[in-house]
Amino acid sequence: MASSLLTRQLAISLQQNLRLAAPGSRYVSKTATKTVSEFEYDAPSMKTAVPGPKSQELLRQLGEIQNVGAIHFFCNYEESRGNYLVDVDGNRMLDVYTQISSIPIGYNHPALMKVMTNPNNVSAFVNRPALGILPPENFPDKLIESVLSIAPSGMTRVQTMACGSCSNENAFKTMFIWYRNKERGYANPSEQEVGTCMINQSPGCPDLSILSFMGAFHGRTLGCLATTHSKVIHKLDIPSFDWPIAPFPKLQYPLEEFVRENAQEEARCLEEVEDLIVKWRQKGKPVAGIVIEPIQAEGGDNHASPDFFIKLRNIARKHGCAFHVDEVQTGGGTTGKFWAHEHWGLDDPADVVSFSKKLLTGGYYHRDELQPDKPYRIFNTWMGDPSKNLFLSEVLNVIRRENLLEEVTRSGKTLLQGLYALQTQYPHILSRARGQGTFCAIDACNDATRDSIMIKARNKGLFMGSCGEKTIRFRPTLVFKEYHVHQLLNILNDVLAEHK
Amino acid sequence: MASSLLTRQLAISLQQNLRLAAPGSRYVSKTATKTVSEFEYDAPSMKTAVPGPKSQELLRQLGEIQNVGAIHFFCNYEESRGNYLVDVDGNRMLDVYTQISSIPIGYNHPALMKVMTNPNNVSAFVNRPALGILPPENFPDKLIESVLSIAPSGMTRVQTMACGSCSNENAFKTMFIWYRNKERGYANPSEQEVGTCMINQSPGCPDLSILSFMGAFHGRTLGCLATTHSKVIHKLDIPSFDWPIAPFPKLQYPLEEFVRENAQEEARCLEEVEDLIVKWRQKGKPVAGIVIEPIQAEGGDNHASPDFFIKLRNIARKHGCAFHVDEVQTGGGTTGKFWAHEHWGLDDPADVVSFSKKLLTGGYYHRDELQPDKPYRIFNTWMGDPSKNLFLSEVLNVIRRENLLEEVTRSGKTLLQGLYALQTQYPHILSRARGQGTFCAIDACNDATRDSIMIKARNKGLFMGSCGEKTIRFRPTLVFKEYHVHQLLNILNDVLAEHK
Repeated sequence: MASSLLTRQLAISLQQNLRLAAPGSRYVSKTATKTVSEFEYDAPSMKTAVPGPKSQELLRQLGEIQNVGAIHFFCNYEESRGNYLVDVDGNRMLDVYTQISSIPIGYNHPALMKVMTNPNNVSAFVNRPALGILPPENFPDKLIESVLSIAPSGMTRVQTMACGSCSNENAFKTMFIWYRNKERGYANPSEQEVGTCMINQSPGCPDLSILSFMGAFHGRTLGCLATTHSKVIHKLDIPSFDWPIAPFPKLQYPLEEFVRENAQEEARCLEEVEDLIVKWRQKGKPVAGIVIEPIQAEGGDNHASPDFFIKLRNIARKHGCAFHVDEVQTGGGTTGKFWAHEHWGLDDPADVVSFSKKLLTGGYYHRDELQPDKPYRIFNTWMGDPSKNLFLSEVLNVIRRENLLEEVTRSGKTLLQGLYALQTQYPHILSRARGQGTFCAIDACNDATRDSIMIKARNKGLFMGSCGEKTIRFRPTLVFKEYHVHQLLNILNDVLAEHK
Repeated sequence: MASSLLTRQLAISLQQNLRLAAPGSRYVSKTATKTVSEFEYDAPSMKTAVPGPKSQELLRQLGEIQNVGAIHFFCNYEESRGNYLVDVDGNRMLDVYTQISSIPIGYNHPALMKVMTNPNNVSAFVNRPALGILPPENFPDKLIESVLSIAPSGMTRVQTMACGSCSNENAFKTMFIWYRNKERGYANPSEQEVGTCMINQSPGCPDLSILSFMGAFHGRTLGCLATTHSKVIHKLDIPSFDWPIAPFPKLQYPLEEFVRENAQEEARCLEEVEDLIVKWRQKGKPVAGIVIEPIQAEGGDNHASPDFFIKLRNIARKHGCAFHVDEVQTGGGTTGKFWAHEHWGLDDPADVVSFSKKLLTGGYYHRDELQPDKPYRIFNTWMGDPSKNLFLSEVLNVIRRENLLEEVTRSGKTLLQGLYALQTQYPHILSRARGQGTFCAIDACNDATRDSIMIKARNKGLFMGSCGEKTIRFRPTLVFKEYHVHQLLNILNDVLAEHK
């Protein structure tokens, strides 16, 4: 664990600010008395251990229909509000996992309720169109006011999809099509290509590859899964492609204290990327695209520096590979900018950027050059869902109106400082606090301890997520304010103080 | 083209019934005056050629955002009702393609509008849960009253997904997991499997395969696409798996006239299936599952007999392969039974049945034995969408209340008889009329003629779909009644009479 003078000083200053003293003491914040939004509760409230008896009975019922091993508890979404998730046993928890980071502005936000009660919107819900052949009249306008209003730099084209996996699958296909079109000089495919593609053989189905990183998560459909390398349970027993996998930098935290060491580690990984590109070209399986998360999420909240991504983007350009930034989890404002890649400061950050989760619809942006040359190459029945675009428009209105990116930056800073303080106070339990905006994480000493902390916290009204081997990940909403941070830190502190 | 005495006799009898005489004459049906449902129009009404000027302007606008080559026209979904799709230029068309077969009970059905205005349902729309970890209280009940109420014979387990491709991808994964668990006797995976799966290598990512059929369509994500063999444009330039592809029977229509020839053709294909299973096992890429559509749709509406499917199911069982029936397009009542496989008359028709489109949510059923042994093996963020289950429940209520399967059988019979009559009258243009329920199709003499007929019909107010090389496919709603059939046949007859 990194524990430099700077960290200790920061922790001391935080302890003073937050009046954090001995184990068992609680964070008390000046902002804790701030008025909460009228639609939200003011604190967690627990009635039973979680899962409570009602959840357990429902678990038994659902177990006759599906594998229920991943279910935490059953929810009363009607009663949930803002940052508070209410379960069927009447327990109200501060939710900093938010349906795997997919609730942008909290439960039952009034702005989203209004979408439902606007009679002009009914048709978008009850008549789901095949958007690729018969779009509704307002489709271009709705795209412009929703997904295109937040398009990444250099991108004016977008394709919506139903979920994150479909978005990445189709982004991969877009890169393959672009790459082969380049290779054959945009000429028509040969007879041999036409013939072989129907029977899954090269050259029609070419031996192209996507380079991904160890620890990555890009989804679980077979194409995506070939680029996912975060957990055994995702991959075991599923056939895959022989595609190159580069090491993702294993950095030391806090990043600002290990600049030199981290730069060396990043240089090592970048060198390996170039080696793999060359090697796979020699193997006859050229790298059509490189896919990467700005922060590896499922794989354990692994960060890299802007410099790493800038150099990687250049390597992709140099070798003629498309550069695909997967912002399914990092996008939507949670890092304090709408897209995590904005932190890199590039005008031309990527060729493809995919999204889902907090954007409520899946999809991906791409540069003009990657536009498929013919219709029906990128296609499916639904191609997204206009009713989700309606919700997204409202979410974006709320983000702008309430300056939520500033809120995220403010809350995120407080959260990260609090985590630094906690790991200083409990160095035998916690380490490697890290984050950008509220997209924060901290490691436990092992997975059993991590799981135990999470269960105890849940029983005290704090619902968190896990990732990697022994990491706790924080994925609150964009309306997660400083007083919510203090509730979080108070509960976590109580759990740690009691931890044997 | 098959043109036996029986067909001719049938056609003559139909001509008398429907008063179809010389080219140019029109079908007049006794039921044509039947009162239409209060929520529907009574006939097509055309104001411009399609696409009209407003559609063309919107096409230009959307062209700056996406490839628009597949778009027919822009729609006014608010004004569309029942079987009639209204476009932005005020043209009202009888829609027998229904958003690629995905509108079950017509546009703006009052029962679906009510789902939207019921305040108890609002939360399901605005708080999309991560169903695999935090389901809503009513989730087991809603599954039971929606998807489970129409579960195929022998199946009590279901997993919802966001779309058809995700459903098939996860169905494949379910079969791979089941197959490997069988192989290792349900023991824990070896260290070597655990290690290799993270880098996409065997044995962790085993060389297993799915056997599919030439002409099949199972989706366009990379796993699905390896089993799709209907059109070059779907497959070209996308890497694939070396999986076995069997011939799908090329039958002669009407089926009842070519029983002996068709049985021979089916026997040939079944023999090839067994050969491929043996060959791929020897290649070290055993067939974990066989996937097939009850009627190949995208590939050209290719039928096979119940006997073929019964024997195929037995071959799968004999060789220890899972049998996956893809009912994404055939399911939902359009063949006159809720599932097309019900026509086979089997108690144990399949190990896996996937669905989407008319069911409004994707998903798949499976036998108990295929239940994944551990959580998170079949998983993604959303795992479906409870708001779609609400709509599905209402669709099923309407189907039951209005006996729509009987309606489909009745309308389908009239439609197929009408198509027989048309191909008898225009043997130089049409052939191979075929269908089950309203899931009907007819071939044109070539693709240019097919496309020309479709455009002319569209301009007269009939919107149809295409499939295969030169096929017109009919995919009307379940509220498509006999007088709609007569409208369809009248317009088609007018187009054919004018056809040069």
